[in-house]
Amino acid sequence: MAIITIVGAGMMGSALAFPARENGHEVRLVGTPLDREIIEACIRTNRHPKFTKDFPAGLHFFQIESLCEALQNADLVIGGVSSFGVDWFGEVVLPQIGEQTPVLTVTKGLLDTEEGGLLCYPDVWDAKMKAQGRHMNLNAIGGPCTSYELVAHDQTEVAFCGRDIHTLRKLKELMQTDYYHISLSTDVMGIESAVALKNGYALGIALTIGVNQKQFGMESELHFNSQAAVFGQAVKEMHGLFSHLGVCSIENMTVGFGDLYVTVYGGRTRLIGVLLGRGLSIEAAKKELNGVTLESLVVAERVARAVRKCAAKGTMKEADFPLLMHVDDILTKNKAVQLPWEDFTFEVSK
Amino acid sequence: MAIITIVGAGMMGSALAFPARENGHEVRLVGTPLDREIIEACIRTNRHPKFTKDFPAGLHFFQIESLCEALQNADLVIGGVSSFGVDWFGEVVLPQIGEQTPVLTVTKGLLDTEEGGLLCYPDVWDAKMKAQGRHMNLNAIGGPCTSYELVAHDQTEVAFCGRDIHTLRKLKELMQTDYYHISLSTDVMGIESAVALKNGYALGIALTIGVNQKQFGMESELHFNSQAAVFGQAVKEMHGLFSHLGVCSIENMTVGFGDLYVTVYGGRTRLIGVLLGRGLSIEAAKKELNGVTLESLVVAERVARAVRKCAAKGTMKEADFPLLMHVDDILTKNKAVQLPWEDFTFEVSK
Repeated sequence: MAIITIVGAGMMGSALAFPARENGHEVRLVGTPLDREIIEACIRTNRHPKFTKDFPAGLHFFQIESLCEALQNADLVIGGVSSFGVDWFGEVVLPQIGEQTPVLTVTKGLLDTEEGGLLCYPDVWDAKMKAQGRHMNLNAIGGPCTSYELVAHDQTEVAFCGRDIHTLRKLKELMQTDYYHISLSTDVMGIESAVALKNGYALGIALTIGVNQKQFGMESELHFNSQAAVFGQAVKEMHGLFSHLGVCSIENMTVGFGDLYVTVYGGRTRLIGVLLGRGLSIEAAKKELNGVTLESLVVAERVARAVRKCAAKGTMKEADFPLLMHVDDILTKNKAVQLPWEDFTFEVSK
Repeated sequence: MAIITIVGAGMMGSALAFPARENGHEVRLVGTPLDREIIEACIRTNRHPKFTKDFPAGLHFFQIESLCEALQNADLVIGGVSSFGVDWFGEVVLPQIGEQTPVLTVTKGLLDTEEGGLLCYPDVWDAKMKAQGRHMNLNAIGGPCTSYELVAHDQTEVAFCGRDIHTLRKLKELMQTDYYHISLSTDVMGIESAVALKNGYALGIALTIGVNQKQFGMESELHFNSQAAVFGQAVKEMHGLFSHLGVCSIENMTVGFGDLYVTVYGGRTRLIGVLLGRGLSIEAAKKELNGVTLESLVVAERVARAVRKCAAKGTMKEADFPLLMHVDDILTKNKAVQLPWEDFTFEVSK
């Protein structure tokens, strides 16, 4: 039996308490400063307010003041913060974790640099810790997994990534169940870029749903030709970005395209895409989604900015990413949705 | 204005009359011997019995007896038969078409050979014609396109493939509209295998829907984690088959994965997958679908047979295709649905 401490009581962090606890481990769920009410509810009811199912018996819940206590002797720390908690996690939580303790984070996203580079969070944290002379064992989770379906024990395939395959194998042993299946990869940037990129592209696919609602009526059947057309284009552009980043492998595509598939159905990203597709401005669409995190918007803007910088330097071509450029124009330039369908066609002549 | 003759009044052949006629061409729709009642209905109502929208004005409808007349001076012949009409099309229709007249077929499928090879229909027809001393200009359509959405003018991206890029460009000029967007590729086997393979794999994804209905109740929300897991595995196995066939390109993946996406929502293939997932035997599932064509079953069996033959020769490994092998076991060996989830995981260590 191991001790697994989960920091962040959002839906994904909390969902991971299920396989962890069901495997017999001691599980400690610690809320961030924003999770105070969630933890209170968990203590009172043994259920996360957003789940329809109780936690397995025997979980321990902690408010943020007890973080240090909750980290004591942990064999694994799971970071369950969203991309908006990245700095907090790096500044407050990581320094309290021992170098020997593996960390496994669910945070999805990419940062872009001044030079048009893209960085994944494990690398950002790693650099920050190294600057303090600390060498952490940082790992991350990617792949198609919605938290409420994990809670429901739906069959789920994810990928754990990290630099050390032996650590990864140990993490798999701790966390795998008969419904939670885990691939392993030392290609951290590959898995992390796959799961981040898919957010921006899922938004692009969801645009077509709103466009069709506008054109054919709100009650019209979903039009899958146009969804599939944008899905195919997303495949092409994600492949182009993988290639640019030097992480083009079938495993990364498997994780990325599977995750793209699930994200089109996944709540907020789908919703904002649909709203924009119906013709709402980005400001109006954001208002409708008041208060929820919109990682899809952030990642699309950052990746588009990186592509534009690389294009200016001549190392990429904007014309190879017409979908991403259009999504970015909608998000940052208030441009009307007008998908460049003909730009998605190709000509292959051998 | 060109003369475009469509042979086969199934849904896809008939749907192509829309862009063709809207572009101002003379369009002649000829029924196969099985389409007699459809053509009668079209003559009477100017509407295909399965569509909710009239044909554009000015179409010409022909019963099969008038095939020869309908082919007179045609600039393009579109073959609209299903894979079950492949022999008929090769024996009855192709010999009546001039060598200079381009042919564009919608038939999706692959044939497997005694040696474990896979052949696409354009190549099969080409060989048959060459044996008669005839050199035809055979082209084909692939990509995500459901006929009723094409009729509704949903934005649609397809790929035309054929050996001659100049012919393909001419066909694109004839057929493209502001909603029908056409990529071109001289990689015939690449496009044809992409759109054939996706049928078998879409069935695999649909299995999870039935499995979840059985486990969580018929009214349970769709479980996308498991769909996405199988989607990812389908990506991996299709990539493996593309590589084996020597047609692994991002364009073929774009077409194949986009088509896979749409097919999961596409009527019959989805339905039989769901029925099998719920626990029906293949015989019982087929009975429920009485009378409809099941290209997905045929292609899965054929490709699995080819893989098994290559595995016996040592040129492929069955273990690389656990999803296809399981689908084949269900279809041909009456095996119960029990997706090998853990076999879908991978380990990448650089």
